[in-house]
Amino acid sequence: MHLDRKNIEALEQRYRAALINSITGFKSLALIGTENSKKQSNLAIFSSLVHLGAHPPLLGFIVRPDSVERHTLSNIEENGFYTINHIHESFYKSAHQTSARYPKEQSEFDACGIRKIYRDNFLAPFVENSPLQIGLEVRKIMPIELNQTILVIGEIQHLYFDETAIAEDGFVDLERLGSITCAGLDAYYTTKKIARLSYAKPDRPINER
Amino acid sequence: MHLDRKNIEALEQRYRAALINSITGFKSLALIGTENSKKQSNLAIFSSLVHLGAHPPLLGFIVRPDSVERHTLSNIEENGFYTINHIHESFYKSAHQTSARYPKEQSEFDACGIRKIYRDNFLAPFVENSPLQIGLEVRKIMPIELNQTILVIGEIQHLYFDETAIAEDGFVDLERLGSITCAGLDAYYTTKKIARLSYAKPDRPINER
Repeated sequence: MHLDRKNIEALEQRYRAALINSITGFKSLALIGTENSKKQSNLAIFSSLVHLGAHPPLLGFIVRPDSVERHTLSNIEENGFYTINHIHESFYKSAHQTSARYPKEQSEFDACGIRKIYRDNFLAPFVENSPLQIGLEVRKIMPIELNQTILVIGEIQHLYFDETAIAEDGFVDLERLGSITCAGLDAYYTTKKIARLSYAKPDRPINER
Repeated sequence: MHLDRKNIEALEQRYRAALINSITGFKSLALIGTENSKKQSNLAIFSSLVHLGAHPPLLGFIVRPDSVERHTLSNIEENGFYTINHIHESFYKSAHQTSARYPKEQSEFDACGIRKIYRDNFLAPFVENSPLQIGLEVRKIMPIELNQTILVIGEIQHLYFDETAIAEDGFVDLERLGSITCAGLDAYYTTKKIARLSYAKPDRPINER
């Protein structure tokens, strides 16, 4: 099947959204927790997380301007802090439900039955049952003028997960933690490890670790 | 296990890189194919793809400035076009091998035994065995000054995949295509679908499709 730029342009809007959202591949999936200055909390599901660097430890995510994600952005602009929480299969339906258009004064934690927890005086709520929780401070909000999306970049301040998941070399076993992945706008997946591979060098064959 | 900003800062460099690269979650994985003006081709593995929008259809990825990924960026700057190719389990070791530091005059297609294919006069090579192939034209190269990484944004010009993988609503079944995902710097995974869920609305329960 071959679709070119004109074929894609001619597709019905929702069909095109489903198609183009699918082809990025399996995506990093998380719930982002925020709070405004009046302690009104918000929780929203994102599949646009991207690793930006380890030193300093930076993560980015994309906000669409015309969506429910807007509440997340306005809270981050107001408060400066937010949490990224991995999603476990046990609560993926509740996590998906946070994408509904709730009014701003209603917290998705309450509306979707997801328990929040505050840790170490951090100024944004974590998802209590999340297998890996990250607390971040916003560092940069970069508008992408091409399509009015926004890249939000944060620096990791706190990291919580079960210590049995970390390997000797620092690798965190997400499968052991039960983190799931997604594709498109609404498909959720567990994973099965094929292998970890050795560091690649031009003159040496790849080995499984 | 709790790590704060100071704990992370104090970690040994490679341990920190493995840790921070792990916690983004499972990632979108692809081989990016490019060519310079002398038709010298390059192929590199990336796990930093991010969906930016469906209309126009935009995809982004992150380039680290001090890495082998630099050849990809310089070819895109020179040529303006590139391909994003999903990775199938059948060639994931060869795909990983493209991350070795080959000299610029050596093509990873040849060095790693990955066959290239040219399609529809597009000015960059595709991976022949890739289950989903995307041809893009670069639209914006955005430096991220915080850590000298670069966000490369491209618009989709061509899309190729087996038509049996597309659903009635435009969703592309990546599992059926055999696209794989990754975590950290070196771990590869197949997936198992849990479910597709219905569009979330505040007053309606979520259903499986």
